[in-house]
Amino acid sequence: MAKPNRPRVIIIGAGFGGLYAARTLANQPVDVLLIDRRNFHTFTPLLYQVATCGLDPSEIAYPVRTIFRGVPNVRFMLGEVVGLDYVGHVIEVKTNGAVQREAYDYLIVAAGSVTNYFGMASLEANSFGLKDLADAVVLRNHLLKQFERAAWSEDPDYRDALTTIVVVGGGPTGLETAGALCELYTYVLRKEFGQPSFTVRVILVEATDRLLAPYPESLQIAAIRQLESLGVEVMLGAVIEHVTQDGAHLRDGRFIPTRTLVWAAGVKASPICDFLDMPLQRAGRIPVMPTLEVAGRNNIYAAGDLVYLEDVQGEPYPMLIPVAKQQGVLAARNILRQLQGETQQPFAYIDRGLMATIGRRRAVAWLFYRVQLTGYFAWVTWLGAHLIWLMGFRNRFSVFFSWVWNYLTYDRSVRIILEHEGLGEPAADREPSAVE
Amino acid sequence: MAKPNRPRVIIIGAGFGGLYAARTLANQPVDVLLIDRRNFHTFTPLLYQVATCGLDPSEIAYPVRTIFRGVPNVRFMLGEVVGLDYVGHVIEVKTNGAVQREAYDYLIVAAGSVTNYFGMASLEANSFGLKDLADAVVLRNHLLKQFERAAWSEDPDYRDALTTIVVVGGGPTGLETAGALCELYTYVLRKEFGQPSFTVRVILVEATDRLLAPYPESLQIAAIRQLESLGVEVMLGAVIEHVTQDGAHLRDGRFIPTRTLVWAAGVKASPICDFLDMPLQRAGRIPVMPTLEVAGRNNIYAAGDLVYLEDVQGEPYPMLIPVAKQQGVLAARNILRQLQGETQQPFAYIDRGLMATIGRRRAVAWLFYRVQLTGYFAWVTWLGAHLIWLMGFRNRFSVFFSWVWNYLTYDRSVRIILEHEGLGEPAADREPSAVE
Repeated sequence: MAKPNRPRVIIIGAGFGGLYAARTLANQPVDVLLIDRRNFHTFTPLLYQVATCGLDPSEIAYPVRTIFRGVPNVRFMLGEVVGLDYVGHVIEVKTNGAVQREAYDYLIVAAGSVTNYFGMASLEANSFGLKDLADAVVLRNHLLKQFERAAWSEDPDYRDALTTIVVVGGGPTGLETAGALCELYTYVLRKEFGQPSFTVRVILVEATDRLLAPYPESLQIAAIRQLESLGVEVMLGAVIEHVTQDGAHLRDGRFIPTRTLVWAAGVKASPICDFLDMPLQRAGRIPVMPTLEVAGRNNIYAAGDLVYLEDVQGEPYPMLIPVAKQQGVLAARNILRQLQGETQQPFAYIDRGLMATIGRRRAVAWLFYRVQLTGYFAWVTWLGAHLIWLMGFRNRFSVFFSWVWNYLTYDRSVRIILEHEGLGEPAADREPSAVE
Repeated sequence: MAKPNRPRVIIIGAGFGGLYAARTLANQPVDVLLIDRRNFHTFTPLLYQVATCGLDPSEIAYPVRTIFRGVPNVRFMLGEVVGLDYVGHVIEVKTNGAVQREAYDYLIVAAGSVTNYFGMASLEANSFGLKDLADAVVLRNHLLKQFERAAWSEDPDYRDALTTIVVVGGGPTGLETAGALCELYTYVLRKEFGQPSFTVRVILVEATDRLLAPYPESLQIAAIRQLESLGVEVMLGAVIEHVTQDGAHLRDGRFIPTRTLVWAAGVKASPICDFLDMPLQRAGRIPVMPTLEVAGRNNIYAAGDLVYLEDVQGEPYPMLIPVAKQQGVLAARNILRQLQGETQQPFAYIDRGLMATIGRRRAVAWLFYRVQLTGYFAWVTWLGAHLIWLMGFRNRFSVFFSWVWNYLTYDRSVRIILEHEGLGEPAADREPSAVE
């Protein structure tokens, strides 16, 4: 590819960091190449609702090309970055089954994070992550299949294992998933799998002695109370030691028979960070300067979950969407400043608080670290905020309608087991593909 | 499984035939076991809209268990029928990775039809069928990937092959798919893949000299005119001889370079018909008596696409949804009549006509074989009828909203490439599964 005359900015990742960087560079005097392994941006806070049959995948996915329709200086490439020459300013992208080299003047690394199994092979092999849309659909299919199996199983122990769901991780994803699973069973599946009647257990396992670690204690306690009112069993101080196809062994010797372990207890930076060829920080994150530049790596910026940057208290900024958005914008602005010979600005996080939803009329919110809300008001705040944050009128309307429908009818409509592994795919599609 | 005291009716297939049979038997003095390889009923007339990014899969799929919620005498089993002992009145079902035997007093075979490749291995290996929801999603993913590839290809011949789509078959599915593909490109993709600009060809190939064979000539001509006004190239009298990964060879020697051949030119009865161990009719269909009983096979009925039954003119009933629905109802009623010692009734088809849609404000309809409609009025009739036929308020509302949205904005929203082949699936899911 010939190097264009205008400076070329390559952005790796169309998550919140990369997307906000590209938006900031839209119609600016640079050429932008945005690369992602998927052709859509995912609204990750609602992944658990796709996994629990409440929403359709497309309701929380938005095609990247649509976002930049009519923006001539932003191009999109569907592919996976497989190499970086930070001296020669070239990246290698696996796309269309071949590796293509693309030159950059500036690079923004915003590839996000992946599930962290902490090196436990037994865990990785026998658990479900919930980090992207494919994860959510795979979990949905799996859950529904377990119930179909349980409906015809005559072995009560096997049946109980099929209908016991373990969610590991006391953060928002763990809480939200556990709550939604209880609701899915109580309001929907229980009515359709009556014969033989079986019991369903949803167990939320957390290694420390509290849920929602960064929240004030009153909200942590409220969260446990709300989860238990839905029917979730909360196990604190429980550490997963080893996982098999048949269940989870805890460090204290207990064994939970289950066929479904959802691992929401850890993320780490994308393995793409290794290409920077430098010592990484905890969870494989890239240490950056306050301007988000990667020290010693010319014209490379980073944004989002894979960034390691400490705040004034010496604590690293958390892996949260607002951080990623604001870092994406700053990285892009600092590139524009650099081009104009201006001084780059340091990252200053504007933090509006924390929210987590638990279920129907149940949530906790800590707004601006001042206002504590629980229950109905926190839940309405969460719903409203997420509708606003969702991208595109159609997705907003569609999710809004789904929520109203689910609320009024107690329904979860997207209960289809839709699998299509290579089904009917011609040889043309079976060639090594850049798309996973 | 112990044989129940009430007569047990097993229904194979939850398509239109099997579903209407089960509904007819709901709350009657029989025990019904309904078996399907999917946990949902598919509204197949809208499959092409899923394949062309207009609708979400769940909008045209309805969970079987939901349909029979609160109907105690109908049970559902997710599995695939792999054997039949018509003497011992037992079927074998692959479910939960094992083969289970289920005894019946009456059996209704309603497993429908599959794509017919007429033994052409090159066709089967290098084409896309459009018979079920997985087919539709696989085709959608493939189409979008071809455009992503074309956007970065510098070889004009390869690029043209990527953006040439061949649809084979001049029946409703072929017309509808070809029209919708032209619209998808014209209204949406053209705006998002502008650089480099590429041409898109949609070619509808039909072996005979006319489209929509059963329609009057004036409607056949109207269909071609409407297709061509959308941009579809219609090739009549063109026979596919051989298909490779790179394109389609016609019998007259012509070669169409393409990576996407949609095969909508033939269906045949489900291979399940072989289990009946009797001579089958054309397209592998089961010859039945006018009561829908299978001659010489005690207490076995058949309904839907896999049935071969001639009308008073000696023509076999076509493989159409209204035929399947009415046969499903009749098979169920004849079983109830048999149980009550009454005389079974012969099949009498109530035929309300034919309809096919081509695109925005374009369709043809032949109502009651008297009224011929084309264009706008045919299109509105088609939309209204399909909304009414769709199952469930939520699906109806959702499809209606999608249609209004797509009509007003010219959008096709579900443009996500969502693949998840074994992604993150734990070993528990990789065991031999009854679910394809």
